[in-house]
Amino acid sequence: MERTRTFTWQDPMPGAAKAMHMSGLEYLNAMSEGKIGLPPLLYTMDFTVEHEERGQAIFSFRPQEFHYNPIGTVHGGVITAILDSAMGCSLHSTLPAGTGYTTLELKVNFLKAVTIKTGELKAIGKIIHAGSRTSLIEAQLIDKAGTVYAHAVSTCMILNYSK
Amino acid sequence: MERTRTFTWQDPMPGAAKAMHMSGLEYLNAMSEGKIGLPPLLYTMDFTVEHEERGQAIFSFRPQEFHYNPIGTVHGGVITAILDSAMGCSLHSTLPAGTGYTTLELKVNFLKAVTIKTGELKAIGKIIHAGSRTSLIEAQLIDKAGTVYAHAVSTCMILNYSK
Amino acid sequence: MERTRTFTWQDPMPGAAKAMHMSGLEYLNAMSEGKIGLPPLLYTMDFTVEHEERGQAIFSFRPQEFHYNPIGTVHGGVITAILDSAMGCSLHSTLPAGTGYTTLELKVNFLKAVTIKTGELKAIGKIIHAGSRTSLIEAQLIDKAGTVYAHAVSTCMILNYSK
Amino acid sequence: MERTRTFTWQDPMPGAAKAMHMSGLEYLNAMSEGKIGLPPLLYTMDFTVEHEERGQAIFSFRPQEFHYNPIGTVHGGVITAILDSAMGCSLHSTLPAGTGYTTLELKVNFLKAVTIKTGELKAIGKIIHAGSRTSLIEAQLIDKAGTVYAHAVSTCMILNYSK
Repeated sequence: MERTRTFTWQDPMPGAAKAMHMSGLEYLNAMSEGKIGLPPLLYTMDFTVEHEERGQAIFSFRPQEFHYNPIGTVHGGVITAILDSAMGCSLHSTLPAGTGYTTLELKVNFLKAVTIKTGELKAIGKIIHAGSRTSLIEAQLIDKAGTVYAHAVSTCMILNYSK
Repeated sequence: MERTRTFTWQDPMPGAAKAMHMSGLEYLNAMSEGKIGLPPLLYTMDFTVEHEERGQAIFSFRPQEFHYNPIGTVHGGVITAILDSAMGCSLHSTLPAGTGYTTLELKVNFLKAVTIKTGELKAIGKIIHAGSRTSLIEAQLIDKAGTVYAHAVSTCMILNYSK
Repeated sequence: MERTRTFTWQDPMPGAAKAMHMSGLEYLNAMSEGKIGLPPLLYTMDFTVEHEERGQAIFSFRPQEFHYNPIGTVHGGVITAILDSAMGCSLHSTLPAGTGYTTLELKVNFLKAVTIKTGELKAIGKIIHAGSRTSLIEAQLIDKAGTVYAHAVSTCMILNYSK
Repeated sequence: MERTRTFTWQDPMPGAAKAMHMSGLEYLNAMSEGKIGLPPLLYTMDFTVEHEERGQAIFSFRPQEFHYNPIGTVHGGVITAILDSAMGCSLHSTLPAGTGYTTLELKVNFLKAVTIKTGELKAIGKIIHAGSRTSLIEAQLIDKAGTVYAHAVSTCMILNYSK
């Protein structure tokens, strides 16, 4: 029996161009308020932006079958994608206009299998170290009871567009 | 201007049940031959199984806009998903019937931005160490010219279903 | 001008044999109380056991020239060694008699250069996830003011000696 | 029964000052030829520089009791220290005068226990990706038969002293 899903998104490039002239938090707020399109992958994955403040971004998702790997659990790539989003936006929310970042590397530990029965999970980012050239961010994927399903750390490089 | 994509997949559970009684390579070949449905995330991401042999799985994808993060490059979660698939299946291809594996952790380095202009990329897995309890696998994401866009390593635990 | 250092240690094997019959915390306490010799590398590195309780081990060291890499800062291997000790003993302190662990992998981020001027640093371990088969532990290297010099995570496998 | 070890080293700072005006390979060769003192930690650990060429550094060591953790195997910090040395010097060997690097992070997988019976091991570095701002390097710890005992990857940032 075949299943079908249809989703829509917008061209991300107009938003990306505006990002250069906004602080990270202004940009993320403009996204949350619908003034700038969300990144396409969020629609592909059916992720939701839960919360944005200076230093912390929270994303959520409800596991669905199209997130699954062959053995009937959510694929590690989906878990990484939401943790990476939470980490990147947590850092971005602290950056002034004229700067940006690129993710050099990330590491994820998968602690507990995630299935449709798990229900909604939140990816909560937190900055461990904010440097002038690089930063270290962590994120946890937790359910409503606070059980941790995955843990990630990521090293990002700060980019200064005026240099 | 809004964009729309529709994709289809099959229930992964019948294939997952059969996997218990097949060697990893038999299972992966059954997938390639269409006898067992591919994992749903492959359809969500539009990844292709390129090649499976004992000890090496290769996946490919062509970057598209629905893979994008806000700044107009392929999201790190997509890159991780295809590398994770290549690493997991490379290991799986070496496992006898009655055994399986779970991914404990993975680490990815993002070496070069991936965009639609990059064209088709292959994720090529390779086993670094095959232990009786855990294995270490690596994967590279490369274009046709051999340029490396991302590199990953992953620690997997071997599961023995008869114990 | 040449510098010289002499240090002493004891055969670790008698203590290792006793460890099999003690809980992790009993074993670590026996070390702290001098009933069992400390691991030889602690003498080689001049590390100190600061504190042991269930779920948390703290080690300290004072950077010295023999810890240095060629450019006059403490070598990453020294920083990793103390973080690894804090992570392993934090986990060990929670394990019952008849069990042990092995470190599958660790990842360290070096956040700030450490020199002799930095003064005493503490490596503080903390368990992120305690599973029946594997655990994830983190550790931070901090000075007296709380500045973080390095951050590590480590995946350990639990061993059951009775199986 | 107590054991004692005495070792000597030289002040690393004169060599560090000269490093600024030499290419990485010139500097490493000056070390190998004894014109510049080796880094102090090499004496502390009793590591040997085996080989230096453009893009590859090889270090070796013979496991000894003062390398041990409490359970009678070589401590993960020692294994990390030699792999980190091989990775850092492999990168350094490719850098022109006026540039340097700093290690942002490293990840090590411990694949097989190392003891005195293991005999001499070599840490062999290899550059995976050489970028203008960051590089990714790997290293393996192998015995004479080619068995791999540990595997590491490391992200380094390139520093340009003239900027």
